[in-house]
Amino acid sequence: MAWDLLFINVHLATMAGDGAHDESGYGAILDGAIAVKDGRIAWLGPRAALPTNQAATVHDGGGCWLTPGLIDCHTHIVHAGNRSGEFEARLNGATYEDIARAGGGIMSTVRATRAASADELLAQSLPRVRSLLAEGVTTIEIKSGYGLDLASEEKMLRVARRIGRELPVQVATTFLGAHALPPEYVGRADDYIDAVCAMIAPLAAAGLVDAVDAFCERIGFSHEQTERVFQAAQAHGLPVKLHAEQLSDQRGAELVARYDGLSADHLEHLSSEGIAAMAAAGTVAVLLPGAYYFLRDTNPPPVSALRALGVPMAVATDCNPGTSPMTSLLLAMNMVCTLWRLTPQEALAGCTVHAARALGLHDQVGTLAVGKRADFALWRIARPGELAYAIGFNPCQGVVNAGILRSPQVLPAG
Amino acid sequence: MAWDLLFINVHLATMAGDGAHDESGYGAILDGAIAVKDGRIAWLGPRAALPTNQAATVHDGGGCWLTPGLIDCHTHIVHAGNRSGEFEARLNGATYEDIARAGGGIMSTVRATRAASADELLAQSLPRVRSLLAEGVTTIEIKSGYGLDLASEEKMLRVARRIGRELPVQVATTFLGAHALPPEYVGRADDYIDAVCAMIAPLAAAGLVDAVDAFCERIGFSHEQTERVFQAAQAHGLPVKLHAEQLSDQRGAELVARYDGLSADHLEHLSSEGIAAMAAAGTVAVLLPGAYYFLRDTNPPPVSALRALGVPMAVATDCNPGTSPMTSLLLAMNMVCTLWRLTPQEALAGCTVHAARALGLHDQVGTLAVGKRADFALWRIARPGELAYAIGFNPCQGVVNAGILRSPQVLPAG
Ligand SMILES: [Zn+2]
Ligand SMILES: [Zn+2]
Repeated sequence: MAWDLLFINVHLATMAGDGAHDESGYGAILDGAIAVKDGRIAWLGPRAALPTNQAATVHDGGGCWLTPGLIDCHTHIVHAGNRSGEFEARLNGATYEDIARAGGGIMSTVRATRAASADELLAQSLPRVRSLLAEGVTTIEIKSGYGLDLASEEKMLRVARRIGRELPVQVATTFLGAHALPPEYVGRADDYIDAVCAMIAPLAAAGLVDAVDAFCERIGFSHEQTERVFQAAQAHGLPVKLHAEQLSDQRGAELVARYDGLSADHLEHLSSEGIAAMAAAGTVAVLLPGAYYFLRDTNPPPVSALRALGVPMAVATDCNPGTSPMTSLLLAMNMVCTLWRLTPQEALAGCTVHAARALGLHDQVGTLAVGKRADFALWRIARPGELAYAIGFNPCQGVVNAGILRSPQVLPAG
Repeated sequence: MAWDLLFINVHLATMAGDGAHDESGYGAILDGAIAVKDGRIAWLGPRAALPTNQAATVHDGGGCWLTPGLIDCHTHIVHAGNRSGEFEARLNGATYEDIARAGGGIMSTVRATRAASADELLAQSLPRVRSLLAEGVTTIEIKSGYGLDLASEEKMLRVARRIGRELPVQVATTFLGAHALPPEYVGRADDYIDAVCAMIAPLAAAGLVDAVDAFCERIGFSHEQTERVFQAAQAHGLPVKLHAEQLSDQRGAELVARYDGLSADHLEHLSSEGIAAMAAAGTVAVLLPGAYYFLRDTNPPPVSALRALGVPMAVATDCNPGTSPMTSLLLAMNMVCTLWRLTPQEALAGCTVHAARALGLHDQVGTLAVGKRADFALWRIARPGELAYAIGFNPCQGVVNAGILRSPQVLPAG
């Protein structure tokens, strides 16, 4: 049973066990080694304990740190066009009314996404995904929600699946039909929710839906409408997650926890009842600092209370054209530390072990552990805290996805 | 007189004339062309007006936008080590006293920079500079100020000059001996200022100083001490600039304006008298959003008043290990728009035409104009506003520095 691949001369940040309770907070193994067989982690530990074994290829990591591949667990990265025109107009003095009159806002993205062919949608989305992958990302979640009709939602989800075939990244898809009310349903939100619930069966049957999400908010859908979507998801055996408590407290966290939800996301207006419900249900809190930063929000999510109750905190880009046009997960890590005082350990756990849990993939990815997918990133850094500390710097030296090293030129074969 | 290089099928954001007053705000020429001869811009205009001429090489820009090469006019990018350990300790609950006791703060960077060989200092600084260059930067300013003795300051400035030889970037050096009080002068700040003034002659004679800067602040040097440094600079014919009004109003802007200073930088606590003095003297306001963001400052610089009085506003990274560990000028552009409501046009002018003025290089670089250095960047964007809109995305497709295209693989030769 020879290994396919062996990395030596690397420090491992395993993020395994309860990452917060080893001395470093990173589950660190200094001067470690890690071996891959059939796309999975076959062995890891201190280099001094390395068993005698044959590996087809040995890489000298040159003292790099090696972490689990990063996971961006909340994105709307498949969309057509962008909203830079709106951004520019607003900063040049246009009012929200001016922009609405000019056809701006989320409906401009819906129109562009509906109008784009699948190939165009893919071509526009790939550069954004590549930006993430260059920073060591190996798994991303991609939501639908700019189609808002069956054919367009299906197109988005098929493009998401194609991204997972065209690029070295694992894609988890989320159906977000209940993202916004399309123009053809104005004044008939309940009818649109009926339509959304009816979309689940065909999309799920086509294998396009790994989870179901909704936008529960005054400007989105009500608690009751959201619950109807969750019931439809549950009827098809699909896990749920929720855009919850971003702008106001809609008791979305309690709702998604009641449905054993994978995650509640945003949470700037989360109540203590919501936190308790999430803690009891094991629902992950997905923190999205990009939208907070871009919208100049001043109400941070209740990080201390989440920490105190042991709610796992994930960190994601929320990449979307309207409120978080961000394609750097490392920057999201810096933002949660700088703006919300997470520790660098929590930031990295938020993009690995807890992000995996937010996708229901924690048995497969998110930590360095024997049997997990061999997804990891190599970093030219002296300590793992540098990942969250630097702003706009990418120290990634190579990415291994399912056991395949994607930037071999940067690592000399040993 | 054949051209060396011709780009066609590009849209030009010239940033020339009064960039704010053409319709786009970017001095835009749609479907333009730009020609290079002997490292300088030889012609530019609409493609339809392109004279019949021979060019040794013609590049089809594929509809890219072409802007002046970006200019980062305020960096401390040459330094040894980083302060990620301090960042991590503080977020894990360490107090400022704990960190001071552990030898943290700016003096830890001074110790590391003094201890590093010139080669080590260069090796540690190059990746940070490369991060800037990947985003279309063609000129950077680099300050000394972590040596704080003649030999160490000279070492830093020589490394800065070497960066300009080793990488395709023009480097402007700034002597910042009056950055902090070194331990050997504790309690004798005036004596240290004498020593700083005495360093100017040998460093200038060695050709290492393009400008002189100081840190005028309660925790830095006083107004009077700063003025002594400026007098010494003036005696050697060197222009001055100043870290002014970052944490409190020290009347630094008035002071640097009185010495016909190139720029006053930071300015979060700038008074209306300071603005008026800068406007009268033509001193550039260099805005540094990275430090504001990283320090969670809540007092923005007076952007509206600067705009109203016509003070040119530049935008820079302030790349430094203690208060702005940032190596993305595009992100600084987003930050000034998001946090301080500059327009995308002002953000781009701040990294081109006004940044050139902050370095006294506006006759050579900063706009697309005949006779200027052929420094420009090509961007895969639909409109120039995308540069400031996106967060952590790099659409740069190629950089031309002094007429030499540095990423030819991305642009097919026509
Ligand atoms: Zn979202
Ligand atoms: Zn500075």
